[in-house]
Amino acid sequence: MNFQLTNNVAVVADMLLAIEQIKTVFARRIRYMDMKQWDMYGGVHTDDAWSETYGDLPLDKQPQSNGQRNRVVGPQALARQIRYFMEHNTPVTSVHHAHRPEIEITSATTATGIWPMEDHLWWRNGDRDEFFHGYGHYHEHYRKVDGGWLICYRKLTRLRVDHTPGFYDRLD
Amino acid sequence: MNFQLTNNVAVVADMLLAIEQIKTVFARRIRYMDMKQWDMYGGVHTDDAWSETYGDLPLDKQPQSNGQRNRVVGPQALARQIRYFMEHNTPVTSVHHAHRPEIEITSATTATGIWPMEDHLWWRNGDRDEFFHGYGHYHEHYRKVDGGWLICYRKLTRLRVDHTPGFYDRLD
Amino acid sequence: MNFQLTNNVAVVADMLLAIEQIKTVFARRIRYMDMKQWDMYGGVHTDDAWSETYGDLPLDKQPQSNGQRNRVVGPQALARQIRYFMEHNTPVTSVHHAHRPEIEITSATTATGIWPMEDHLWWRNGDRDEFFHGYGHYHEHYRKVDGGWLICYRKLTRLRVDHTPGFYDRLD
Repeated sequence: MNFQLTNNVAVVADMLLAIEQIKTVFARRIRYMDMKQWDMYGGVHTDDAWSETYGDLPLDKQPQSNGQRNRVVGPQALARQIRYFMEHNTPVTSVHHAHRPEIEITSATTATGIWPMEDHLWWRNGDRDEFFHGYGHYHEHYRKVDGGWLICYRKLTRLRVDHTPGFYDRLD
Repeated sequence: MNFQLTNNVAVVADMLLAIEQIKTVFARRIRYMDMKQWDMYGGVHTDDAWSETYGDLPLDKQPQSNGQRNRVVGPQALARQIRYFMEHNTPVTSVHHAHRPEIEITSATTATGIWPMEDHLWWRNGDRDEFFHGYGHYHEHYRKVDGGWLICYRKLTRLRVDHTPGFYDRLD
Repeated sequence: MNFQLTNNVAVVADMLLAIEQIKTVFARRIRYMDMKQWDMYGGVHTDDAWSETYGDLPLDKQPQSNGQRNRVVGPQALARQIRYFMEHNTPVTSVHHAHRPEIEITSATTATGIWPMEDHLWWRNGDRDEFFHGYGHYHEHYRKVDGGWLICYRKLTRLRVDHTPGFYDRLD
């Protein structure tokens, strides 16, 4: 018998399962966002989750938390903020696509991920289309809570952004 | 000795292997389509596979099966229909990209998957380019047959579609 | 006790771990490229790695190795060449996205992968934007060296390419 081998296999299987679960919770958040299922959106985050993903917005339109710009804290606030961004005044059609990630399991209950991403947003401004088209990376942290993996932090960095001049007018 | 652990590891490894195989059969179908390898295309599907993925077409150009619009049944018909769509009158260049999926193993031999997707199609209409550019989700079902996973159902839902007015003229 | 089962599980877990590691080394290369971390770029390749990925360039601008066009050999040369391509005369913004791959483990230390891909490049030519937008497949080979997977070969085939007429002027 080879206990050593069995143990290693268990560790490997556990790690790979964690990676697959983390990728799936990531995919779920994106789908809830693009399908506008706001009541599901908060639940993929830990209670103390926070994000720094609104840095593209003009300074005066960025969400704030405790005086920090571009910061949203807590699952309910995260859901409320993205819903506001996607539906305030007029609905935005959004498509977020994420590509091959680098997931690192840093302990039995913590992990990080870097995801190349691209996002398209469109809305109708009277008789013309407003659009936003961006490219960048999501940098996320994950935590295992009650046997499942949740997102506890998210930052967005950009490689390039193109948008129409009136894209943010909707938020006035 | 820890039979419990060993058993769990076997279950986890089996499930993760199934997920990887399902992702690969998905990738293979897309590649056969974009590389126009029609003789390979049918074989990634079960004998009773069917699809509902032609809902973007004008109603009078959608394939039908037993009086149902937007329906194609069986591997041979699936291959014949996509080939017709891609090559009738003049060849279409296509690029289909699928992103982070949510795969669920629902039994030892069945599974489901949701895939964010984007597709580009181009063809030359005299002296101008016709294009189609769409975004949405594939919703698929899989079944294990003779030790390998195959696609048995596929539906396509859309978030957004843009195309030139003459894009479907080729199918007249 | 079921030695058979345990052995199979170990093989499956090993194979799945290899696949995840290969996907991660792929992702890392792409990130180093788009983030212009040239000192990291070479290290994801084996000492004898070579590429055939410059076939889009005009013939007189393709890199050569031993009289072969569209060929770059060795980690240092690979890093030097991509850096030249991305920064010569003026910096290029690049976004490379890779989609669902087909990874095949061909032995304990060798593997292959096919990756659908899309790349965007932009640079500023005086007062106008030059761009390149391509679609295709990476075909890679991998080898396990000192316990880690590295890239030893890369070819790029194209489905479609669009670019501005002056896109390659930067390399004059």
